Amino acid sequence: MLKPEILDALRQAVGPEWCLTSKADLMAYSYDATPLYQRLPDAVVLPRTTDEVAAVMRVAHEHRIPVHTRGAGTNLSAGTVPTSGGIVMSLNRMNSILEIDQENLTVTAQAGVVTAALHKAVEEVGLFYPPDPGSMTSSTLGGNVMESAGGLRGLKYGVTKDYVIALEAVTADGRVFRAGGKNVKDVAGYDLVKLICGSEGTLCIVTEVTLKLLPMPETKRTALAIFADMTAAARAVSKIIANRIIPCTLEFMDNGTVRAVEDYVHLGLPTDAAALLLIQQDGPASVCDADIARIAEICREEGATRVEHASDPTEQDRLMQARRWALSALARRKPTTILEDATVPRSQLAPMVAYIQSVARKYNLDICTFGHAGDGNLHPTCMTDERNKEELERVDQAFAEIYAKALELGGTITGEHGVGEAKAPYLEWKVGPVGIDLMKAIKNAFDPHHILNPGKMFAGETRKRVVVRQ
Amino acid sequence: MLKPEILDALRQAVGPEWCLTSKADLMAYSYDATPLYQRLPDAVVLPRTTDEVAAVMRVAHEHRIPVHTRGAGTNLSAGTVPTSGGIVMSLNRMNSILEIDQENLTVTAQAGVVTAALHKAVEEVGLFYPPDPGSMTSSTLGGNVMESAGGLRGLKYGVTKDYVIALEAVTADGRVFRAGGKNVKDVAGYDLVKLICGSEGTLCIVTEVTLKLLPMPETKRTALAIFADMTAAARAVSKIIANRIIPCTLEFMDNGTVRAVEDYVHLGLPTDAAALLLIQQDGPASVCDADIARIAEICREEGATRVEHASDPTEQDRLMQARRWALSALARRKPTTILEDATVPRSQLAPMVAYIQSVARKYNLDICTFGHAGDGNLHPTCMTDERNKEELERVDQAFAEIYAKALELGGTITGEHGVGEAKAPYLEWKVGPVGIDLMKAIKNAFDPHHILNPGKMFAGETRKRVVVRQ
Repeated sequence: MLKPEILDALRQAVGPEWCLTSKADLMAYSYDATPLYQRLPDAVVLPRTTDEVAAVMRVAHEHRIPVHTRGAGTNLSAGTVPTSGGIVMSLNRMNSILEIDQENLTVTAQAGVVTAALHKAVEEVGLFYPPDPGSMTSSTLGGNVMESAGGLRGLKYGVTKDYVIALEAVTADGRVFRAGGKNVKDVAGYDLVKLICGSEGTLCIVTEVTLKLLPMPETKRTALAIFADMTAAARAVSKIIANRIIPCTLEFMDNGTVRAVEDYVHLGLPTDAAALLLIQQDGPASVCDADIARIAEICREEGATRVEHASDPTEQDRLMQARRWALSALARRKPTTILEDATVPRSQLAPMVAYIQSVARKYNLDICTFGHAGDGNLHPTCMTDERNKEELERVDQAFAEIYAKALELGGTITGEHGVGEAKAPYLEWKVGPVGIDLMKAIKNAFDPHHILNPGKMFAGETRKRVVVRQ
Repeated sequence: MLKPEILDALRQAVGPEWCLTSKADLMAYSYDATPLYQRLPDAVVLPRTTDEVAAVMRVAHEHRIPVHTRGAGTNLSAGTVPTSGGIVMSLNRMNSILEIDQENLTVTAQAGVVTAALHKAVEEVGLFYPPDPGSMTSSTLGGNVMESAGGLRGLKYGVTKDYVIALEAVTADGRVFRAGGKNVKDVAGYDLVKLICGSEGTLCIVTEVTLKLLPMPETKRTALAIFADMTAAARAVSKIIANRIIPCTLEFMDNGTVRAVEDYVHLGLPTDAAALLLIQQDGPASVCDADIARIAEICREEGATRVEHASDPTEQDRLMQARRWALSALARRKPTTILEDATVPRSQLAPMVAYIQSVARKYNLDICTFGHAGDGNLHPTCMTDERNKEELERVDQAFAEIYAKALELGGTITGEHGVGEAKAPYLEWKVGPVGIDLMKAIKNAFDPHHILNPGKMFAGETRKRVVVRQ
């Protein structure tokens, strides 16, 4: 509970109608898209300007109150659950696109702008913002920046971090600063912009971002390759890249995912396929045609039973939708869906997929896998029921083994979902004790009183490392 | 002077023959490519392995001795001059390319590998490492990473930072750590890799890097556009980008630079041109042809008196060499050459170029300008004589006004040369007092005793801000 004088100060900072304290309001901000994590905050504030954000932070700083900043709350690692209580600060009202600069190919927008709205605005003038996280129809730019969100086009175009070139932010003690600019080259001091990208609300609060844009590619081509053997599909992915072709999208769905999607949205997918690869290339028509033809050839060489080419934009959209429905389709099957994102170098896709299957069998779990195969970013998804504590323990153990295996293959514990609270016990596995020391020192440098999203990224205790044996 | 027991410890760390203390050896490591800065170190060490680097750092940490790490010393902001004395650590012996991974499209190399040698090695297997700093025939990867070096292809392909995906480094107190990996997506904790890129040897010592590679573009096309009016050339650059064409190279030379190059290497350049644009596009032949044709059209629309197309690879190389000779050609004219890199958003190229000319007239200085016009990264170059103190004061004042103007136009004080010691007094102009506070806090987090390249990036005192009036 916050003292009345603190609530008064918050009401003064954002206006009384934008400081919420009713049980129903607190409930609405007590969770995000991660299962199993929830806590009521003490207050929710919805500032409209950077100055209001700074005013809130000055109050929080003075009284050492935790501040959990969020946009749409689509986070999948409990990164936006207010597990320390205190204040939830929603930036959803800061939703203006401020400038599209067609000479410098940039867009500047407030943190609360929805990703898909930004796509639409820049595409209307023939420009292209590649990052397309799965949640893009509701996720916000501020959240995308704080997680360095990825998506289906990461393979060719990179992730959010690769596009953020400037930002405005507020420090833990309520000072406003700007970093970066519209310059293609800029080495004036440490790169605060890239450090803040992916910092999960633990270093400062980003209120405005400037993003690099690209010219819209001339056209695109889409194909679907069907495999009777899952590791053959994974081998095809590695071989496509090794052949020096970088498609814009190279997605993977296993049999369980294909069946779930087909059950749900009836797109005519081959439910007997062991695995599907969904392939898209963009660029000049001649290049797309040549790349897709060669990719189809490679898929056949690696054992694809059929390769379908999408003949028109509607058909292309239908295929891409199949992949975008994957999570929703799987989530229907059981009460609780745990979506993970263990990631490996793309050459290690086949062993990783096989390992996930073996772990699911070992622990008798319902795990389907889909994901961004081209960049090694897999989404093993476990359908379970949080009321079944015994099964949840098996899920926990299975995922710990999956992370350990990903690391053994040169991968990482999270490709695009962030560490948050859910993966904090595993961070040291990836970055080592020196890495943890340096990261904690950075955290202390920005937020000495640990009021910004406390409890996230750094765990009280690191999980004991499991030994992976196949 | 280092105490004998410290020298003994350093000799033990790297082997006696690789710890140099003779006057001649110290002299050789007392300067870099920046004029006006020099100081003898107390000792020079040349480790061969990461463990040896760590051993040196443990000695330096114990005795609080400054360590200035360097590769080839091609730095242009005095970043590698040992201005605090102590130890110079040269990583030139750590020059092995460790792995070219053709499945994941990466190369892993030690910090002392020469940039051009890396280019050659990866090109032999059909892969492409885009960063091509002007000093690439002698500069090393470690130096490139520490400066986030740019080059002629930055416009389309970005800078060194965009290609570093993993590194091994040694902390100020001699601990070894690794950050990043071969994963296209990785959000496990703060991005230490991108923070360390461009940190100018002030946070840690990078001993090994893994770089992302691209498939080698199919072909390239080159053109030269000749302008009778310098601002017309700048306008053409902005218009090319605004037309959604991103060439791989878009270089600018003013009349003084053209004449100096022609005097020096006799390439048949038009010495009466007010400005030249050197344009290169790479990619599939059909795309290159279309882009170069449209670029030529734009140049003519903006007043180019002539556009020449390079007919074959030899001719293309001749044109590109013209640009690569610019600095050497100018440096012949007077004893001291001061090469700067004020940078602006590309839309601001015309006003920036005009401003540089007006400042040169105002202070009666010999300043020629060339540079990476496509990314707004200009190299105004002043030919002077360091023995003429009165003129040097005018040079100093002129450049202060050029930085102020760059910032007024949304630019930065350094696009690719780094802050080092030469630009430290100006850093606050760009990043503001909060930015300086955060950067100093990061420095303290990594290097609490300030033994890593002390005196660089952060100045004792910030220069008084000049007011720019045209």
